[in-house]
Amino acid sequence: MPDIKILTEAELRSLVPLDIDAVECVEQGFNSLAKGNVVMPPIMTLMVPDHNGEVCVKTAYVPGIDSFAIKMSPGFFDNPRLGLPSTSGLMVLFSSQTGMLEALLLDNGYLTDVRTAAAGAVAARHLAREVAARACIIGAGVQAGLQLKALTLVRPITSAVIWARDTAKAKATATNLRAELGIDVTASASAAKAVASAHIVITTTPSNTPLVMADWLQPGQLVIAMGSDQEHKVELQPECLTKATLYVPDSQSQCALKGELRSAVKAGIVPTDRNFAELGDVTAGRAAGRSSDSDIIIADLTGTGVQDTAIANLARQRAEAAGKGSTFNSQTRAN
Amino acid sequence: MPDIKILTEAELRSLVPLDIDAVECVEQGFNSLAKGNVVMPPIMTLMVPDHNGEVCVKTAYVPGIDSFAIKMSPGFFDNPRLGLPSTSGLMVLFSSQTGMLEALLLDNGYLTDVRTAAAGAVAARHLAREVAARACIIGAGVQAGLQLKALTLVRPITSAVIWARDTAKAKATATNLRAELGIDVTASASAAKAVASAHIVITTTPSNTPLVMADWLQPGQLVIAMGSDQEHKVELQPECLTKATLYVPDSQSQCALKGELRSAVKAGIVPTDRNFAELGDVTAGRAAGRSSDSDIIIADLTGTGVQDTAIANLARQRAEAAGKGSTFNSQTRAN
Repeated sequence: MPDIKILTEAELRSLVPLDIDAVECVEQGFNSLAKGNVVMPPIMTLMVPDHNGEVCVKTAYVPGIDSFAIKMSPGFFDNPRLGLPSTSGLMVLFSSQTGMLEALLLDNGYLTDVRTAAAGAVAARHLAREVAARACIIGAGVQAGLQLKALTLVRPITSAVIWARDTAKAKATATNLRAELGIDVTASASAAKAVASAHIVITTTPSNTPLVMADWLQPGQLVIAMGSDQEHKVELQPECLTKATLYVPDSQSQCALKGELRSAVKAGIVPTDRNFAELGDVTAGRAAGRSSDSDIIIADLTGTGVQDTAIANLARQRAEAAGKGSTFNSQTRAN
Repeated sequence: MPDIKILTEAELRSLVPLDIDAVECVEQGFNSLAKGNVVMPPIMTLMVPDHNGEVCVKTAYVPGIDSFAIKMSPGFFDNPRLGLPSTSGLMVLFSSQTGMLEALLLDNGYLTDVRTAAAGAVAARHLAREVAARACIIGAGVQAGLQLKALTLVRPITSAVIWARDTAKAKATATNLRAELGIDVTASASAAKAVASAHIVITTTPSNTPLVMADWLQPGQLVIAMGSDQEHKVELQPECLTKATLYVPDSQSQCALKGELRSAVKAGIVPTDRNFAELGDVTAGRAAGRSSDSDIIIADLTGTGVQDTAIANLARQRAEAAGKGSTFNSQTRAN
């Protein structure tokens, strides 16, 4: 059996920062998806109801990429009471040619955070106005900050407003992001005002009820909804999808099950059989993106296995180039 | 982050031999399944058509077991040309309480081999006649030998006949098994005669066409069909299922998609809405097994995530008791 590379979270954090290269990497993944020969099975979800937990498994085979990742993402929402993070997990890389185990990326969810934020930046790069300068972030968790940071990589963002149910947390996050990013970041007590004031709105919560109302949306906006990735989640009032000029899912089949599209179809607002161009179609130039400064565009990002395969390959390539990581042989032992 | 245990194939082979303890362990898994509070999502399958490969991902949360496994099983069928085995893979153990990564079992498919053979023994223990002494094994690969070995753990097997499409391979396997198990093992050129002569028939092939005909089945037999675990596979002529007195799937929902049941339903021989007691119902005493010496019984084993969770927990417990394995911290590195 070939040797296996093991990379720790600390190594992966230093090898794969959230930068424009990560955004490019994820964009190339979306481009591959549009070519139609990527194999991406439906997400596997294991519910652990006794412990308020769930695990998602995602994967994708991308022709032309040497390896494919299988990513396991546990979310156990009582963990903070035990002093542990809610989310953790790892990615496993296999040879696309032989299926042999190649690398274990023990990232505790870090690479998922990066590829999720990078997808927001990909959506913004292709769907937001060039001059978009004001952001609204709904939510105050890890992705709130990473999405805003990713946004600054692709648009001239000068200010951001954070809204969260917990106003104190929104204020603390705003303070931290102001210091980190060097732009004007404030918290707002009014979600309606925060949304209406922004060029780009990004929703990053695990909400089960809509937080953004259709009436609040303004001409020219891009709304990136990335919080809903399970059957019970929703962040946008379903009417947002018909108010929008253009709706762009990362994967229509996934969004119909787990994204904002699910709620809109369930509400009878979007017909079941309507076909949408996906984000990869737009990034690959196969479908139109923004056609005017007044378009309202919604990007529905549930998170795709192709992003995991893309970022895991980037991490492994960089580890090899830098000589990082431990080597293990599964038949013998560590060396 | 807690420490992670890493176990190699060599360590796992010495820790978890195919013995009666492994059979008991898998039987307890089936018992849990019958209680109805196991969570076992549908199998995830990633096809890699460019390289004649496929990867199955299985998992199950079993209340009362400390950890759950996610098992990844690649099968890349051109590998032998490259001097590599067709199947490989690993199991990953997570805490059932927190979802935290606990152990990486780098077994290259070994634990799957063991838990698959053990399931055959569980079926034989509950569904074969007590006096069953003659076995017929269809197929001559790794599982052919392991299934026969497992059978000797639960029934007084004195002889076995191997049939495979490749008669030379059947002969070589028979010679090896005779030496290993110390019983009379021969190869047969006639599948019909081999099947008709046996008390227990076990099919272990990746066949896409039926190999065992309904006319061949004899009163008192148990047929364990364990080869079909994908949508395109089938080993039994569909009429076998109606000739049988009793049909017992390991998981009806899985067998309807990937087992012998799929072909029988497709052929219109078994109605879609017919409900069968599962193997766990029988092992847990909730459903009847063999009711007479003349019953013909078919066990349809597609392989369940609950077997993986059960065997992975056994391996980890034994490793801890024996002080085996390497320790790794995902945030820092090896120690």
